[in-house]
Amino acid sequence: MAVNVVESKEWYLAGYAADGVPTTDHLTLRSVPLSLSLDSIPDAHVAVQLLFISVDPYLRTRMSGQEDGLYFPQFSLNQVITAFGVGRVMRSKDEKYSEGDIVLNAFFPVAEYCVVPSSVLIRKIDPEAGIPLPEYLSCLGVPGFAAWVGIEVLGEAKPGSNAFISAAAGGVGMVAGQLAKLKGCRVIGSTGSDAKVRLIKEEFGYDDAFNYNKEVDFDATLSKYFPNGIDIYLENVGSKMLEAVLNHVNPHARIPVCGMISQYNQIWTEREGVRNLLNIVGKEVRMEGFLVGSYLDRFADFTVEMEGYLKQGKISSKIKIYEGIQSFAESLGSLFSSSNFGKVVIEVNKPR
Amino acid sequence: MAVNVVESKEWYLAGYAADGVPTTDHLTLRSVPLSLSLDSIPDAHVAVQLLFISVDPYLRTRMSGQEDGLYFPQFSLNQVITAFGVGRVMRSKDEKYSEGDIVLNAFFPVAEYCVVPSSVLIRKIDPEAGIPLPEYLSCLGVPGFAAWVGIEVLGEAKPGSNAFISAAAGGVGMVAGQLAKLKGCRVIGSTGSDAKVRLIKEEFGYDDAFNYNKEVDFDATLSKYFPNGIDIYLENVGSKMLEAVLNHVNPHARIPVCGMISQYNQIWTEREGVRNLLNIVGKEVRMEGFLVGSYLDRFADFTVEMEGYLKQGKISSKIKIYEGIQSFAESLGSLFSSSNFGKVVIEVNKPR
Ligand SMILES: NC(=O)c1ccc[n+]([C@@H]2O[C@H](COP(=O)([O-])OP(=O)(O)OC[C@H]3O[C@@H](n4cnc5c(N)ncnc54)[C@H](OP(=O)(O)O)[C@@H]3O)[C@@H](O)[C@H]2O)c1
Ligand SMILES: NC(=O)c1ccc[n+]([C@@H]2O[C@H](COP(=O)([O-])OP(=O)(O)OC[C@H]3O[C@@H](n4cnc5c(N)ncnc54)[C@H](OP(=O)(O)O)[C@@H]3O)[C@@H](O)[C@H]2O)c1
Repeated sequence: MAVNVVESKEWYLAGYAADGVPTTDHLTLRSVPLSLSLDSIPDAHVAVQLLFISVDPYLRTRMSGQEDGLYFPQFSLNQVITAFGVGRVMRSKDEKYSEGDIVLNAFFPVAEYCVVPSSVLIRKIDPEAGIPLPEYLSCLGVPGFAAWVGIEVLGEAKPGSNAFISAAAGGVGMVAGQLAKLKGCRVIGSTGSDAKVRLIKEEFGYDDAFNYNKEVDFDATLSKYFPNGIDIYLENVGSKMLEAVLNHVNPHARIPVCGMISQYNQIWTEREGVRNLLNIVGKEVRMEGFLVGSYLDRFADFTVEMEGYLKQGKISSKIKIYEGIQSFAESLGSLFSSSNFGKVVIEVNKPR
Repeated sequence: MAVNVVESKEWYLAGYAADGVPTTDHLTLRSVPLSLSLDSIPDAHVAVQLLFISVDPYLRTRMSGQEDGLYFPQFSLNQVITAFGVGRVMRSKDEKYSEGDIVLNAFFPVAEYCVVPSSVLIRKIDPEAGIPLPEYLSCLGVPGFAAWVGIEVLGEAKPGSNAFISAAAGGVGMVAGQLAKLKGCRVIGSTGSDAKVRLIKEEFGYDDAFNYNKEVDFDATLSKYFPNGIDIYLENVGSKMLEAVLNHVNPHARIPVCGMISQYNQIWTEREGVRNLLNIVGKEVRMEGFLVGSYLDRFADFTVEMEGYLKQGKISSKIKIYEGIQSFAESLGSLFSSSNFGKVVIEVNKPR
């Protein structure tokens, strides 16, 4: 007989963290009973067992309690956190979905189980496609798509372009470097540990890479790695690295601005400013921010291209999997400590 | 009988000014004899009497003795300064030019007379066109073209766009505001004195304007003038004004970066940094630097459009004329003191 009430653990926001990395002082795990009986589920809703949850830097910016520059609304106090995820339909009150369907949603509660309107589901995943489920949160998901928009659309990567990618060993960076290589660029990455430097050179085909935590003078570092200047900088970190890059850009360089993670734990007035923006004039730089949500009309093109690369083994991926919903606070913290490798995902329940 | 030797006064660079406004400590006037006899003029050269010289902010950046972000080469010590100008051909060793021709050159010596290769001349001006000669250095010259590239090409001005223009009463700003109005934008300007605020509202049709020297909190000022946010910011000044703008941009705002004059008198490491660049991501801002020299393929389109506006009285222009070559240092200094109105030009010799 099917279970009709589950205890579902979920993370809610107990307090805002104006600065610093949010911890269990701000994020709290609670257990709530959830009825899965069909008559308790409203029409056009589904009950879902969460399988994988994507742990992304922007989540932190929704916990500051202030406008932060990314403009996702703040999470409400005492409400459950939401995140991109993959789940399995357990009960359905929508004929388009059946028990067992694997579904994607950009705003799943960070919980073990949930009941959500079927309209929020992005789509079903075909488990026969042979693609591991976490990949839909990585190469085929938001980070992969962000890398594609940054490198192919805004970066205009061309054979011979000198491309620089920061946060190069993360979800976006690992894909961005490989896409730039596939386009014929010379690709250099920066990341936060020697092990990650090795990873991106050995597994992701970066031409070279450096550990920014060991460099004392980014300007000298970039002189060394970019004797011919920088044509494309995929900006993931901001601040001092951006400033150094602006002293090494070539005429008509492109800087797709994907994120600035070094700024997420600081109130904006406390952030260190960039002093050499005048280079944008002299080098006629195009610096352009983007949110993947604005490029959904290109998502199908991206998917075809990326599935092709994955099947042909042209793009490889590394996923750091945390086990169980209780790991959410720790896994979120890992985004700010250089301790993670590749894309960070939580396995909430084992897929069957 | 024609004069064969003239005494020509010219300005040369006596010393670099790493910071501050260059003065006669750095710029020196000297008198040199110049032979105008035909046999002393090399083949494919012309002797020119300077009529008007354009006094532009970028000239200052060529006197710092260091890479400054605008990337025009530094002037050499003890060499004559060069600038955009209009002159009259006195002698010609090139059959394409005759005595009396009015010619334009981007790199005339800042002098009363000169002998230059005819290949450096941009073109002849038809004096019958009925356009006052200084206008070729203003609306029809570099500032007008910069305004056009900024507003029409990169700014993508559309009816209803909220446009903000800094240094709004200067050579670029006065044209930019009028072009944006012609495209149907709501246009606000900032400038450095109350008299200039009146000028741009009354003569250049700005919807409103403010004196930035009187505002204590740019953020509050922009809230007042842009209740619906900013869609286009033509960046001419940089630093604090840019930072304030980035807190008021609408999604997909464009920031054509024409210049950052507040930075030209400072070594880059001493400049105040911009702390809220993260807004570029959240608001998906496109910030793009440009140099008019890269858009010369559009110069003909621009000229047709601008001549049309001038003839129809749709664009008006204000030119601040300094008399005589000896005024160069003072006129250059005026660019940094809010004391000038409109485009700054030196009348070197009276056109006949
Ligand atoms: N615009 C969009 O639509 C979009 C979509 C997805 C992601 N993003 C952005 O893209 C960037 C990368 O995201 P991701 O998902 O790929 O995350 P990720 O790279 O997997 O994780 C973040 C990484 O950033 C690095 N980092 C943390 N703090 C840093 C600091 N102070 N300075 C330098 N590096 C730091 C860490 O790696 P190290 O070991 O290298 O330090 C960390 O692993 C983020 O800025 C994110 O906000 C934007
Ligand atoms: N990219 C290109 O190809 C190109 C071509 C031409 C010009 N430009 C740039 O466009 C800008 C305007 O040039 P323009 O020829 O039109 O010069 P301008 O505006 O006629 O003269 C400069 C004006 O800037 C203002 N200013 C000076 N110091 C300032 C400061 N610290 N903060 C704020 N405003 C200040 C002053 O007016 P206020 O009274 O308003 O203070 C001054 O009159 C400059 O940045 C210039 O470098 C770029």
